Amino acid sequence: MTERAGKIRLFVDAALAEGARLALGRPQAHYLMGVMRLGAGAAVAVFNGRDGEWRAILQPQGRRDAVLEIAEQTVPMRVPPDLWLIFAPIRKARTDFVAEKATELGVRRIQPVITRHTRSDRLNTDRLRAHAIEAAEQCGAVFLPEVVDPAPLDRVLADWPPDRALIFCDEARDAPLLSRVAPPAPAAILIGPEGGFAPEEAAVLKARSQAVAVSLGPRILRTDTAAIAAIALWQAERGDW
Amino acid sequence: MTERAGKIRLFVDAALAEGARLALGRPQAHYLMGVMRLGAGAAVAVFNGRDGEWRAILQPQGRRDAVLEIAEQTVPMRVPPDLWLIFAPIRKARTDFVAEKATELGVRRIQPVITRHTRSDRLNTDRLRAHAIEAAEQCGAVFLPEVVDPAPLDRVLADWPPDRALIFCDEARDAPLLSRVAPPAPAAILIGPEGGFAPEEAAVLKARSQAVAVSLGPRILRTDTAAIAAIALWQAERGDW
Repeated sequence: MTERAGKIRLFVDAALAEGARLALGRPQAHYLMGVMRLGAGAAVAVFNGRDGEWRAILQPQGRRDAVLEIAEQTVPMRVPPDLWLIFAPIRKARTDFVAEKATELGVRRIQPVITRHTRSDRLNTDRLRAHAIEAAEQCGAVFLPEVVDPAPLDRVLADWPPDRALIFCDEARDAPLLSRVAPPAPAAILIGPEGGFAPEEAAVLKARSQAVAVSLGPRILRTDTAAIAAIALWQAERGDW
Repeated sequence: MTERAGKIRLFVDAALAEGARLALGRPQAHYLMGVMRLGAGAAVAVFNGRDGEWRAILQPQGRRDAVLEIAEQTVPMRVPPDLWLIFAPIRKARTDFVAEKATELGVRRIQPVITRHTRSDRLNTDRLRAHAIEAAEQCGAVFLPEVVDPAPLDRVLADWPPDRALIFCDEARDAPLLSRVAPPAPAAILIGPEGGFAPEEAAVLKARSQAVAVSLGPRILRTDTAAIAAIALWQAERGDW
């Protein structure tokens, strides 16, 4: 639930089509009527990640509930280029941040991965998803990345789609710079934990035919910085920037 | 004061040279002896942003004070490419974050700028500098960007060096993508506030011969995301990545 430049945008789960009526949950109804002080007939923008953005009209139902009547589509659906982000979770605030930034920069899927050297508290996928939703609301996005549950690296690799490149940021200095590689698509960017990949993990990764080892310049980057920089470079070279 | 992969790195102000003796302030002495439990003869890495990284030997002086004896240089001095970041400060945590990320990605100067639509609390330059120092300690950097005090946009422009390009991220959609422009150097990346530049500010910017208006893709980016993405792209195209 976010206001930006006077425009209130709400993410909703339901299908959006002209004339549809959408009963809001109490928190969204409270946000519109209690926090933003909107009354009957006020217009807000809604999106569900699938149907673009629509103008919707608020119809309060008593003091605590409300319905949105869907008017017309204002922004057509647009899906970002086919990039996934797979990253070893870090401290809570930084992990939330990665979810937010990946959503803004445009990825289709966010996948936390557990590696040998991953040091993380239990990760709350719902919280990550909430950060992605807030980022999408804030940034005018009509698409929401799929935020999937954390999985061990070997399981992620076992299910790997044969046509998807795995761009794997290697701390070893012998990998070519991502900016000098023509980045493949569809692709996933894999960012390891602060301690790096264990030698056996690095060996398994390098043995995969879809793997492309890259480096991100002469300075050591934190996990969150590396994730954001790699997505930006991929978008610039291969995506829709 | 940061430990990474077993290596403790300290930023110090003093000149570094073989045989120099450096009296530590109480907080750094406490960190080394109280928190990290180092005793006499322990080795740490120190850097001052000018002389590279040096190995230093701890010599406690009583329980609360300590001297570092500088042994030999372990990493030569290396200065990042000549890029400045100028940005309109945002919420405190995000502003701290921008200082941290710009340091990791490599800029020479960080300049907060006050524009018409800047909504920010008073900005604490010392806190920003502390975040830059922590990022440099953490990321193995030997250089520390100069963090300068906030200044109004017109004053920043009045003092503008004639040979420095001003890459100005424009929300207007007609500017070319940064990834499609051969980025000039030396340069500064200027990121405006969430509300964008006021029309008169945009006009003044566009009228400058050093200005290069660019866009950052089809999605709206928050200020902090835009700053990080723009630095990453500049580094990839024109810097040392």
